[in-house]
Amino acid sequence: MPRSSTTRTRLVESAGARIHASSYATATVEDLCADAGVQKGSFYYFFPSKRDLALAAIDDQWSNTQVTILEPAFAPDVEPLERIARFFRSVADHQRADVVLGCPFGNLAAELGTQDHVIRDRVREVFAGYQAYFEQALREASADGKLRESDVLGVAQALLAYFQGALLLAKTRNDATIIDALADHAVNLVVGTYREKEPT
Amino acid sequence: MPRSSTTRTRLVESAGARIHASSYATATVEDLCADAGVQKGSFYYFFPSKRDLALAAIDDQWSNTQVTILEPAFAPDVEPLERIARFFRSVADHQRADVVLGCPFGNLAAELGTQDHVIRDRVREVFAGYQAYFEQALREASADGKLRESDVLGVAQALLAYFQGALLLAKTRNDATIIDALADHAVNLVVGTYREKEPT
Repeated sequence: MPRSSTTRTRLVESAGARIHASSYATATVEDLCADAGVQKGSFYYFFPSKRDLALAAIDDQWSNTQVTILEPAFAPDVEPLERIARFFRSVADHQRADVVLGCPFGNLAAELGTQDHVIRDRVREVFAGYQAYFEQALREASADGKLRESDVLGVAQALLAYFQGALLLAKTRNDATIIDALADHAVNLVVGTYREKEPT
Repeated sequence: MPRSSTTRTRLVESAGARIHASSYATATVEDLCADAGVQKGSFYYFFPSKRDLALAAIDDQWSNTQVTILEPAFAPDVEPLERIARFFRSVADHQRADVVLGCPFGNLAAELGTQDHVIRDRVREVFAGYQAYFEQALREASADGKLRESDVLGVAQALLAYFQGALLLAKTRNDATIIDALADHAVNLVVGTYREKEPT
């Protein structure tokens, strides 16, 4: 089913794509209007500012990420730890391109974290959303008693950090295959915890 | 011993600080001159462009990071895995501030990775520099045979990704204490590998 292509939707989608491919600062309102094929008056009818459009783009990208990456990766047809590995492999697949763009959310936090607290806090919410998927898988993995319930939050947070770092390395080397290599180690963040807790 | 304060040095140090505290795009040549108390003519006498100053600032920050963080953390007075944990704790200490700035190198890669390949490649070299410290510690840790030599590069890369992700999370939450919490899990990237290899 094709997505509706109202003026607002075109602005949101093209802004998400341009900011992801370049940066927030270098994407001017003129660029964003040209990409969407709209006049400035139209832009300001829908969005009071570039920041407001960027926030809408974040929400749109987060919805798409849940549908295209997170829900399929974390579907319960495989064991919980395999879901985590599958998530990393799916991220690698989505990053493969001539120019590796990295994470749209992490990029914004790195660029704007000290300058725009509203955008930073929206990214923080998205990160919490990713973390919730890791937590759910870890809770199920802990049902066998090898991972203590009290470790679930810490390990989920570690996986979130590792995931963001993997994307940043891939962008810095312009090579998405590094995410595949890193995926093999992601589960060690979990099983390393297993090991420590076994004697108790 | 105070560092020399030639015009060039002032430009390099104040540019490093401003770009770290804001971003590359928003730090104008005018800002950079004002911070260093120099005229534009002076700026262009030393640096053909803002990019050239940024590259010099990266080199300067990397030298400082080696002296203040990496060499002390990886000194051989403690066991190799304890050096890795000490590195993460030291990074957390250096990030503690009212406004958490994140990694000066990772920030630039995230902001400029798709837009400026020269700066991106310089950051890639710095990342390789960090990775070399992890590798050295892991080679020593592997001397007991629990970590295979063939795993050293992969685990070092995983630690680099995790370190960068930890800094990005701290910046996104504006809370450096998360790095302390994540430090406890860093060594699991190593011991998880131990565990898998034990049966061979």
